Amino acid sequence: MNEKVNLADKLALFDEYWKPKIVGRYNDNDVRVGKLKGEFVWHRHDDTDDFFLVLDGHVTIQLRDRDVELDPGEFFVVPRGVEHCPRADEEAAILLIEPRGTLNTGDAGGPMTATAEEI
Amino acid sequence: MNEKVNLADKLALFDEYWKPKIVGRYNDNDVRVGKLKGEFVWHRHDDTDDFFLVLDGHVTIQLRDRDVELDPGEFFVVPRGVEHCPRADEEAAILLIEPRGTLNTGDAGGPMTATAEEI
Repeated sequence: MNEKVNLADKLALFDEYWKPKIVGRYNDNDVRVGKLKGEFVWHRHDDTDDFFLVLDGHVTIQLRDRDVELDPGEFFVVPRGVEHCPRADEEAAILLIEPRGTLNTGDAGGPMTATAEEI
Repeated sequence: MNEKVNLADKLALFDEYWKPKIVGRYNDNDVRVGKLKGEFVWHRHDDTDDFFLVLDGHVTIQLRDRDVELDPGEFFVVPRGVEHCPRADEEAAILLIEPRGTLNTGDAGGPMTATAEEI
């Protein structure tokens, strides 16, 4: 992982939605890219903030009290402990930074839970 | 800082080169954006990796044994302890993630040292 990473090249390697892949490491964090379409599950991460940068498409980060609307070149950090549910009506791509080992579904678990693999 | 951040809007707020600004927080890290033109100084960060994502323009991360060439949508993580010197022949813009308080010049100090301010 000591090479540069082209985000578009990495995104071209997979098609699955809601299963971000590890494309780099920064200290104890994973740098991940993911494709989104549809609605995820409501969840929270009690021990970490969640950094979302939109690379392509439009993403809505639903919070319990409001929606945060993100276009490419916009990021939002969901504070730890805050329930959120990402949604993308059309396919979208994001860059995430999360502590190594963070599960995508946080406290919620369930069938959409995926362990991030490295690509 | 509990709002979304548009990176282009933040970059439009300043003109200085080599003085990244804090535009967000993620756990104990700053999310910073910076404008580059010319050559920085050789330095290293003994305690942290350095995440560089190019947003605009072309950036060369010079290492002692090779150059890493980055276009928009490409990132490179300089491992801790590794000497590096960024260069941009034309104006370029980057997103950085660094532990809060990290100095831009690492171990090198000198006149280009700047404490990151929040915008």
